[in-house]
Order: sequence, then structure tokens, then C-alpha cells
Amino acid sequence: MTHGRSSNILFIMCDQLRHDYLGCYGHPALKTPHIDSLAERGMRFDRAYVQSPVCGPSRMSTYTGRYPRSHGTTWNSFPLRVGEMGMGDHLRPLGVRTALCGKTHMVADRKGMERLGIAPSSPEGRLMAECGFELWDRLDGLHQRASGKQPTHYQARMQARGYRTDNPWEDYANAPLGDHGEALSPWHLSQAHRPARAAERDTETAYSTDRAIEFMEDAGDRPWCLHLSYIKPHWPYVAPAPYHRMYGARDVIPVVRSDMELRDPHPILREFHRNRVSQVFSRPEVRDRVIPVYMGLIKQIDDNIGRLLDYLRKSGQAQRTMIVFTSDHGDYLGDHWLGEKDMFHDCAVRVPLIVMDPSPAADATRGTVSDALVECIDLLPTFIEYYGGTVPTQIIEGKSLIGLLHRSRAKLREVAISEYDYSVRKARVGLEMPVADCRMQMVFDGRFKLVNVVGFRPMLFDLAEDPDELRDLGADPACREVIVRLTRALLDWALRHHCRVTVSDADLQDAIGGEARAGIYLGCWDQGDIDQIIRSGDSGY
Amino acid sequence: MTHGRSSNILFIMCDQLRHDYLGCYGHPALKTPHIDSLAERGMRFDRAYVQSPVCGPSRMSTYTGRYPRSHGTTWNSFPLRVGEMGMGDHLRPLGVRTALCGKTHMVADRKGMERLGIAPSSPEGRLMAECGFELWDRLDGLHQRASGKQPTHYQARMQARGYRTDNPWEDYANAPLGDHGEALSPWHLSQAHRPARAAERDTETAYSTDRAIEFMEDAGDRPWCLHLSYIKPHWPYVAPAPYHRMYGARDVIPVVRSDMELRDPHPILREFHRNRVSQVFSRPEVRDRVIPVYMGLIKQIDDNIGRLLDYLRKSGQAQRTMIVFTSDHGDYLGDHWLGEKDMFHDCAVRVPLIVMDPSPAADATRGTVSDALVECIDLLPTFIEYYGGTVPTQIIEGKSLIGLLHRSRAKLREVAISEYDYSVRKARVGLEMPVADCRMQMVFDGRFKLVNVVGFRPMLFDLAEDPDELRDLGADPACREVIVRLTRALLDWALRHHCRVTVSDADLQDAIGGEARAGIYLGCWDQGDIDQIIRSGDSGY
Repeated sequence: MTHGRSSNILFIMCDQLRHDYLGCYGHPALKTPHIDSLAERGMRFDRAYVQSPVCGPSRMSTYTGRYPRSHGTTWNSFPLRVGEMGMGDHLRPLGVRTALCGKTHMVADRKGMERLGIAPSSPEGRLMAECGFELWDRLDGLHQRASGKQPTHYQARMQARGYRTDNPWEDYANAPLGDHGEALSPWHLSQAHRPARAAERDTETAYSTDRAIEFMEDAGDRPWCLHLSYIKPHWPYVAPAPYHRMYGARDVIPVVRSDMELRDPHPILREFHRNRVSQVFSRPEVRDRVIPVYMGLIKQIDDNIGRLLDYLRKSGQAQRTMIVFTSDHGDYLGDHWLGEKDMFHDCAVRVPLIVMDPSPAADATRGTVSDALVECIDLLPTFIEYYGGTVPTQIIEGKSLIGLLHRSRAKLREVAISEYDYSVRKARVGLEMPVADCRMQMVFDGRFKLVNVVGFRPMLFDLAEDPDELRDLGADPACREVIVRLTRALLDWALRHHCRVTVSDADLQDAIGGEARAGIYLGCWDQGDIDQIIRSGDSGY
Repeated sequence: MTHGRSSNILFIMCDQLRHDYLGCYGHPALKTPHIDSLAERGMRFDRAYVQSPVCGPSRMSTYTGRYPRSHGTTWNSFPLRVGEMGMGDHLRPLGVRTALCGKTHMVADRKGMERLGIAPSSPEGRLMAECGFELWDRLDGLHQRASGKQPTHYQARMQARGYRTDNPWEDYANAPLGDHGEALSPWHLSQAHRPARAAERDTETAYSTDRAIEFMEDAGDRPWCLHLSYIKPHWPYVAPAPYHRMYGARDVIPVVRSDMELRDPHPILREFHRNRVSQVFSRPEVRDRVIPVYMGLIKQIDDNIGRLLDYLRKSGQAQRTMIVFTSDHGDYLGDHWLGEKDMFHDCAVRVPLIVMDPSPAADATRGTVSDALVECIDLLPTFIEYYGGTVPTQIIEGKSLIGLLHRSRAKLREVAISEYDYSVRKARVGLEMPVADCRMQMVFDGRFKLVNVVGFRPMLFDLAEDPDELRDLGADPACREVIVRLTRALLDWALRHHCRVTVSDADLQDAIGGEARAGIYLGCWDQGDIDQIIRSGDSGY
């Protein structure tokens, strides 16, 4: 497949956006016409799973095309080990300018870089610090402040627009507007219904959209891949006017939970039920106050995506730009008596994924929905194939979606896998687990979802009989066979090569008999044997 | 534990030395008094297993303290990925000069280095090319020639001694002496009984010993760790006089094999039975010709170790030098109808391991034998502890032997693990396996040895009932429970973190509640909730 020199990808990621909070994914009240229009013109994936239900590991998986166990960033802010290749490291050699606009949650492996003599200010060091992306605009939001990073372009722009602050997130964009114009705390969920203190055009979502358009202006005719990474609808749940009151409690879809889930729950679930954030989101008034704002933030993203699509049309790039829309994980919002996103129920680990491939070959699937099990690590190989490259399968563990998009195949894999490391969560103490053993893995075959919990019995859900995942069958003797089968699939996956990254499968294909070619003749009694090897070209080993 | 500034380690490794070809390991005819004297003054490990039965992966495991699946070098000459830390990278920060004298089989990840902007000629680049060792003297033997490397110091020394050749291995040290003084081929096993064309003092074993003594002279009073890595008794099976005829066919221990092994063997074994080298070593006349020479090469090593021990005594370093003796894997030599070392029978995967720790704390175990399951990856953490360092458990997967040496513990682990990647072996074609799936793993609990073969049934041996491993129980329904149990142990191991190398366990221990400390308050309805978090220091998550 060739796209000529000017093929582009606009790769949009939201943060903490559940799969079911979009019009095209069936939300009854939330209208997202622009995102829906992508689904109409592209393929919508109905069973897309992230490789970890938290930002850092999920994103590092998306950017490297590798599972958390392979890239090693198993939780937020764990540095990505030096040498791991990011999206730009794979796409740049194909002539593609690969840039970041927004959030990545990337933390560089400074110790590793120092050990290898790589200066942070060197070209390689700078790319490494951004997971291989050219730094167009990074905006990690609160994390940026928490980690004591340098002032951002966003901050400078806000100041240029008259906002007198060096912390525009907390003082304006994420601050509910007080009765006297003052900033309220971003952390008071009780204030979520108030508008943000910043105007819509000055919030992160609008800002990142502006910056993305500026990038596309800047990029000109050279092929580009822009990762536009919105930090919303992630908390703080604060939306600017008019989005703060576009939805109300009547628009909130019913909570998905059952008292059954509280009766003798799996020990790890019991621990997470106890979290403050789980307790709070289990209260109806919290959901009714917060979820409409969450929806408003999504609506705002949709409108901003409208601006992007407009720009692409007007600039003549729409016909040569693949558009990808996804999220890094979901949000429990009180479902299953949980808040945040640490476990493997669909509302946490299943994400929206829409791919609009402009190639004529993709015409066959426009407007269709795929129920293939796909993973976020499939995006990078998709991009490589889109740009005409060869996927280095010894490094990248995902599989290109191009075959699905072009209807040359209907399925990529038998099981989807996700991982979670709870070593920095309070549950570790409650369960008295050593930090090295706080590990869980999900294996989902499209019907049964097994959650392996190191040190405990597994959880099991049958999504055919129980699509809401309310009945944990992990201790049910009748399910023993399913558990054995999925555990075997987990073993097969775990035993794959994850680190044999320096030798390609193609190299290996031709490597048999290397000794003889190097003049090393094993198992020869005399010259007759050696002659036979030379004649036959078969070293016999 | 502190040893003062001048504690040393002499870490001796042989290549392809079986565990049972030493006096102290019970060989009836082969006398190895110098190595035996180490066992008398130290601890002899009776169940030491390498992490792969071939040189490259086994050595990279020993040097990194990590399993092949973690460091990624799953076969010979697969480059060790950039960023993996070698022995010297761990010991140098402890003030220890860590040098190589002999073979490593290390191949640098040039592509990775180039990508990261690391010049091969930089200090970091040079260390990386030697797996973290200071290059004192590298001698990879034939591999050096095969890989087209630069002339070695050995070559220069040979030329200075009047050997007119640029290939002293093939023309002298490994060339059987012909009737007219000419060099015969190193590959004619039929000529193995002839002496090498080089004098003993000019063979690799003597040369590496000389160079090791030169290093110890050079090192002075600074703490050092010298990896003296003999390339013998690895093939070519050619010994210098008088070692070439020190043993005869009468000294060869009986072959360990049974016709039972040829009846319906496991498919992977059937493939390896077909190898030329397996066929050849299954012939009695080959064993009778070759094994006495293999024994002679070991005897030569023992005598050279005598020279080293003499030097240490005379130089006054004996009391402050830990001496470690081991091998990188064994040699089938016709046992089980196999040659070379690709499978997991004890003669391939079990190695001799002797540790002579000079510390008074080790007095309690001098001359004793440990039957603890130990792995070659345990050496690096042992060395770190010996020098007073802290083992970075997020990187190093082995466990220090110091506790065993000082009798503070009797056991390190429940199972020993080893891995093998046969993607570049002919068996891959015979079995029609994709290169990514040519994987096997051994799990040995001290009695049962399970070999998991991806795509096939497992093999199982009960070493209590069948110490010679002649009866494969892998298809025996009566053994189902054992297989399930060991497969579960394999899963537990495979699911461990292998790549979470950038965050230490100690860091994680204190990381819970990091959000609140960074001013991020999740799940708070109002200021009262935030105040409570601040008061209690408990983020509730």
C-alpha cells in the first residue's frame, strides 16, 4: 500500500473516556455527531481493549505497540526504560513527522540515560523524554504540576490572554467558578455543576485543538502523524460553560451494579470497594452531580473534533488523512461499586476505537462495526502498514488493523489481554502482598473474561449470559474447564518472547545452518562428512 | 558484610563442562585435585542449573542476573539489547574493577546503540560491547574468526612466540598434529586422539591463565572481579600433549541412554536425535575417541587452576579472594542419543558450581555440599552482596548465595527454570514451527522435571525414580497432577515482572498515596474530605 508523500494520520486519544459514552456507541442522551461521523466514514471497533486500565501503562503500550510486561511501565510515572521504541521511533524512518500535542504521561528513564551516556539535551535524549514523539505541545495537566515540570506553552498562552497565573489548570480551567468569581477547588465533587473559571476557548480541550490545527498548518505537504491527546474527560470533573449544564441527572444512564457483588466478593475487589473514590461514586447524588459534567466534557471534545474535521476539509487534507479516535481507559463512575478504573470490567478496560482510513481499499468497511477483539497495541502496527513500512514483529506485539479495515480478514486474535499492577495502591497493604506480586491479568475470549490474580483465586465473567459482569464465576466448580482453558491461553501469552527484540523473525527464518556457513563443522568424523555438508548445504543440526 | 577495599572475586567459567566430569562431582577416572581443593575449602552446589543449555543465553543470564526471556538473548550471537546491565555495570559503582579474560559470546546491539546515539568508541559504547566488563582479554575462539573480529592479543602473542599464522586457533591450538607436522582439520573427530599442534603453554587454556595472572598483577590493591572464562573443554575436541593421551577408552564412563528413549519419543527429541552431531556421538567409537580428549582438556584446566591458586597464595591474595568455579552448560556426548547440548537433561543443563568464600562467616559451610536448587543468575547478586552492595531486585532475578554460604538459609527457591529457543535449529523446519514459537522451558522442583514445549505435549521426568531421565512421563495420565502443578509454577514464573526495571521495590514500598502528597485529592465531595486526607495522611486509594 502506498499513499504518496502526503499521507497523514490524526491520532486522537481521550483520557478516561468510557466506551459507552458516545452517540455511536449507544449512549441514549449524549450526542456526539462529529465523532459519530468518523464512525460513519470509517470502522467502529466494538471490542477494543486497552492493555492496562490506567493511563501510564496503557499509553506506553499504545505508543510502543507492546504489553506492559514487555515495556515495563506497569503504572503511572514509572519511567519507560531506555531503549524502548516509541511511535515516532518507528514512523520517523518512514519519513513521517510524528508529533505530540497533549498528554502522554511519559516519564523518561533518566538513570538509564545517564548510565548510557545519553545527554537529556541531545536530539536522542529529547525524543526519548517524549516517548519518541517530536514535542509539539505537551500538556499533562495536573501531573505536569505535580511532577514539577517546566512551564508549558499552555501556561504562556493563558498568560498572554490575560490570565494572571502560573497554574492555569488549577486556577482556571479546572477550577469551578465561585459565587464571587473566585476559584473553587478542583477536588470538590460537590462543585462539579459549576462552570469552569476559564472560557471554553481557554480550556485544555480547546487549546489542544488549536495547537493541533497549528501543527497541521506547520506540517505542510510532508507526511505527518499527529498524536492529539486530550486530557479530558479525565478528572477534575469541571466543564466550561455552556458544557457544564448541557446535561442533567435525567441524562445519567443507570448505574451497573448489584448487591450480589458485595456478597463475599473477590478479596481484591473487596479492597477496591473500600477506596474512598469507590465509596463516593457509589452515592447516587455524586453520580448525578458528576456524570453530567463528564458528559459535558465529552460533548466539548466532540465539538472541538468538529473544528478539526472542518480544518481538514478546508485545507484539502481530509482525503489523505487517516483519523483514529480512541481513549486510554474508561471510568467506573460508581458501576460495580467502584470509582476510577483499576479493574477489568468493560467500563474500565474497554475503549471506543474508530478508524477512518481514507484509502479506497477501506471503502468496503465504511460505516461498519467490527466485533474482532482488538487491542490498543494494534494501532502502531496499523500506522506502520499505512505508511508502507514493515512491522518489526520482534518488537511490536500488536497486529495491524489494516486487514480488518480492508476486509481481507475478520479476526486478529483469540484472546485480548490486559494487565494491572496494584503495587502502589492501598489494596496491596490490605492484602498483605509483596510489591513484586501485586499483579493481575485479564484474558478475554469474546465471551468469557478471566482475571488472574496472583496469590488468589481467579475471577470469571460470562459476558454472553451476564453482559453486565455482575456474577463472578471464578469459584464455581462448573466453570473449571473454562478457567483451565483461559489460564492456558494466559500461559501461552506469558511465555511468548517479549524481549527478543534485536533479531527479526525474517533474520531467523534463514539462520539455520549458520555454523557450517561460518566454517564450523559439527559432528563430522572425517573429511567425507565435511564434504557432504558442503555439497548438500545441510549442516544436519 | 564488609571486606575492606581489597576484596576480590576470581570468577572462573568453563565452556561446555558437564557437572559430572570433575573429581569432586564423582567422576571415577578424571582427577581434578585443584578444583576439588576449592570444593574442600568452599561450598559445592550439587543442583546448579543454567538458564539455557547453550552458551550465549546462558552467559547473558549469568552476566545480567536475568532469565533469557528477560534479557532477550535467547540464542548465540543474538545481540544483547541496549540498556541491559552486565556484571561490571553493577559492580563498578561499588568500586570494583570488573574485567574479562576469555570468552563471553557477547554481541553488542549496534542498531540499538546507533538509534540512541551511542558511539561504539565512547566509554559507554566500549563497555556495552563487552557486556559491562572492562576488556582485559577477550578470546571467543572460533567464534571470533567466524564473526570477522579484529586480531586478538592471543594472536599477537602467538606470533611473538614464533607461530607464523593469523589464525592460531585453527592452525595450532585446535589443529591435531599431522604425521608430517602439518595441521589437520579441527573438525575431524577421528583425529581427536592426536595432540594439538601448539604446545600446552600456547593453547587457549594456558594463555588465558597467563593473562589472568597478569591482570591480578596489574590490579594491585583495588578490589577486583576477574571473569576468567576458558573456552574449553568446548569443541573442537583437541588437547595439547600430554593431555591428549592422559585418558583412554577405558576411562570413559558408560553412556546414559536406553532403547526406550527411541520408542515413540517426544517430537522435539525425535528431531534432535536426527541431528548429525547426535548420530555421530551415538557411535561407541566416537565416544571412545573423543571423550578421553574432553577429559584431557578438563585436566589441563585443572592444572592451570593450580597455577592460579599458587599465584593467589604467593601474592597474598588468597585470604581475600572469593573463587567461583562453574560452567555455562554441559555436553550430551552421546547420552540420550544426543550430541551437543540443546535439551534439558541434567548432562546439558546442570553444571558444576563451587563457591569458595574467604569470609569467616563462610567457615561453617567449608567442604560441604548444598542440594539447594540454584541458578547461574544467582552469581551476580552473590557478588553484589559480597562487595557490600544492595541487589536491585527489580533488575536482577537471581538470589544471592551468601545466605547458603553462611548457613543462614538452606533453600533459595522452589523450582529451577531454564529456557531454550530452537528457532535457528533444523528441528524448527522438521516440526514446521514458526520462528516465534520455537520455545521450551524447563521447570525442575528437585524431583520432577517438566519440559514445556510450545505447541506439543510436555515432557516429564521423575529424578527420584529415574535419576538418569530415561523415562518420559509427559503422556502418562497418572502424572497429570504433577504436570498441572509444575505448569502452574511455570505460569507463576512467566507472569512475574521481567521488565519493570526502572522502579525499585523499595521505592514502591512507600509509594501508596502519592496523589495526595502531590496535592491530588480523589473521591472528595467537599473540603471536609480533603481535610481528612491531610489529617490522616491516608488518601483512601
